[in-house]
Amino acid sequence: MINKKKFVAVIGGSECSKEEAKLAETVGRELAKQGAILVCGGLGGVMEAACKGASAEGGTTIGILPGDSRQAANPHVQIPIVTGIGYARNAVVVKSAQAVIAIGGSYGTLSEISHALQSDIPVIGLNTWSLSKNDQPDNSIIPAQNPTEAVDKALNLATR
Amino acid sequence: MINKKKFVAVIGGSECSKEEAKLAETVGRELAKQGAILVCGGLGGVMEAACKGASAEGGTTIGILPGDSRQAANPHVQIPIVTGIGYARNAVVVKSAQAVIAIGGSYGTLSEISHALQSDIPVIGLNTWSLSKNDQPDNSIIPAQNPTEAVDKALNLATR
Amino acid sequence: MINKKKFVAVIGGSECSKEEAKLAETVGRELAKQGAILVCGGLGGVMEAACKGASAEGGTTIGILPGDSRQAANPHVQIPIVTGIGYARNAVVVKSAQAVIAIGGSYGTLSEISHALQSDIPVIGLNTWSLSKNDQPDNSIIPAQNPTEAVDKALNLATR
Amino acid sequence: MINKKKFVAVIGGSECSKEEAKLAETVGRELAKQGAILVCGGLGGVMEAACKGASAEGGTTIGILPGDSRQAANPHVQIPIVTGIGYARNAVVVKSAQAVIAIGGSYGTLSEISHALQSDIPVIGLNTWSLSKNDQPDNSIIPAQNPTEAVDKALNLATR
Repeated sequence: MINKKKFVAVIGGSECSKEEAKLAETVGRELAKQGAILVCGGLGGVMEAACKGASAEGGTTIGILPGDSRQAANPHVQIPIVTGIGYARNAVVVKSAQAVIAIGGSYGTLSEISHALQSDIPVIGLNTWSLSKNDQPDNSIIPAQNPTEAVDKALNLATR
Repeated sequence: MINKKKFVAVIGGSECSKEEAKLAETVGRELAKQGAILVCGGLGGVMEAACKGASAEGGTTIGILPGDSRQAANPHVQIPIVTGIGYARNAVVVKSAQAVIAIGGSYGTLSEISHALQSDIPVIGLNTWSLSKNDQPDNSIIPAQNPTEAVDKALNLATR
Repeated sequence: MINKKKFVAVIGGSECSKEEAKLAETVGRELAKQGAILVCGGLGGVMEAACKGASAEGGTTIGILPGDSRQAANPHVQIPIVTGIGYARNAVVVKSAQAVIAIGGSYGTLSEISHALQSDIPVIGLNTWSLSKNDQPDNSIIPAQNPTEAVDKALNLATR
Repeated sequence: MINKKKFVAVIGGSECSKEEAKLAETVGRELAKQGAILVCGGLGGVMEAACKGASAEGGTTIGILPGDSRQAANPHVQIPIVTGIGYARNAVVVKSAQAVIAIGGSYGTLSEISHALQSDIPVIGLNTWSLSKNDQPDNSIIPAQNPTEAVDKALNLATR
């Protein structure tokens, strides 16, 4: 594998608030500025906003789609991967990245966070899920206060 | 589909504490006594204990395996499904059930809980994960105090 | 894995001719009579006919479905597995069996034959595909002249 | 989806003859020269030779891997997709392309050909499988005499 660039997944809801979209777009811009490749689920909401930001800065965007049609990709996906495996593709999104940034999101995003943590892929969280087990907090999701901090932490941890 | 029996998944770690194993075995026994079919990931720990309990009461046990070999199934699996799709099979385990009982577990279990909630399949929790988002608790995981209560709640909710 | 019964997949089109349906139903009957468990893709055509035959003889039928709904299973499926992974489930159907009987079928069936041969799972053919490569015949699909011969060959080869 | 480039999969054995490697490398070169993006399974043999050819001409190469490690990609893969779903990823390779060129190959390649034909994705063959059903030839695999013809046919047919 000859690519020296880092692959970072941005995950979140296919519908999202304006605030989340703004966070995602800034994350996408920062990733592109710092030379990273954006991986996402290829659909709308957070995924689309992140792709829009990355594309605006000349970055590369990969969309790993659940369905059977490349046409389902948002307009800023440059490399659509058409899996046809439904939401089992959530595991593929995170495994294809060296670090993950989670922004908001619902249960699909939580499944991606879980698959990432199960595979020892670092997860940075922006206004997203927090976890506890048997009433003990689990601090595996690394918090970030803003998009720049999230990108910096992701790139520092994307070493595998 | 001619089966009138209910399909309930029992999920949890492939390694587990003695207490968790005891909970899982009792859950398996209760499910079998009440005529339900047990679905699980087919491996050790909570999965094996649940299969052991169900088998002891004459119940049916299905193990949906991540790897390529039926030999990986625990000794109490009667119906091994050999997926070969790795931990993407976590989504298949829960989708094949009408309700899910989570016992303890780590991130793999959390991914199964997430996939279930994403698919509107009810999840009952015994000493397992709890969730919050943006510091607000998410109460989607229905708590149970003991195995009998977990099985009763699961069977009541397994209506789809 | 405690099951001593043999698992045999019956594959073929979700639409089929009357002749193919008759072959499939007889194959299903014979498998059940000889104590084997039937695995299939859970839908119509050859799959439904095979399940009908097996059920009529008191056999067990497993349907490994491509979509997200157990309701898609044909009326003779007793154990529906809901994969949600689309036609990638074709690989799961054959991996879950120790031998495969192919009856007619189109490209989906051919993909199942291929996945089986790739995994060293024996394939018996009844009026189905034949293969050649670089104009040399490939005889990996074992021909059978009738359903009884197909079942006998499948059970003899289902040793793993 | 903003990419105007065409996506073409090159499929074949992870081990191959020198002649097949030469065909694959030339196919990769031609695809890159004509501005297409190469999709493959990311491993050795035909996949590696095709990626080598495409990279030498400045083309983009995508490798859709079966396992859990990006390190398994051949040295000429620029975009590794880490599926972790084993040979069920064969369906993803072809669905992510608008046309497929098959070079030699064994049963894995045949499964990819089958999945492509099932999804109405055109398949061009160079020294590869040929099909017949019930002793009638099936001419769905479009033959090509040499790499240039294969690429021309693939690009002409890659319209979806």
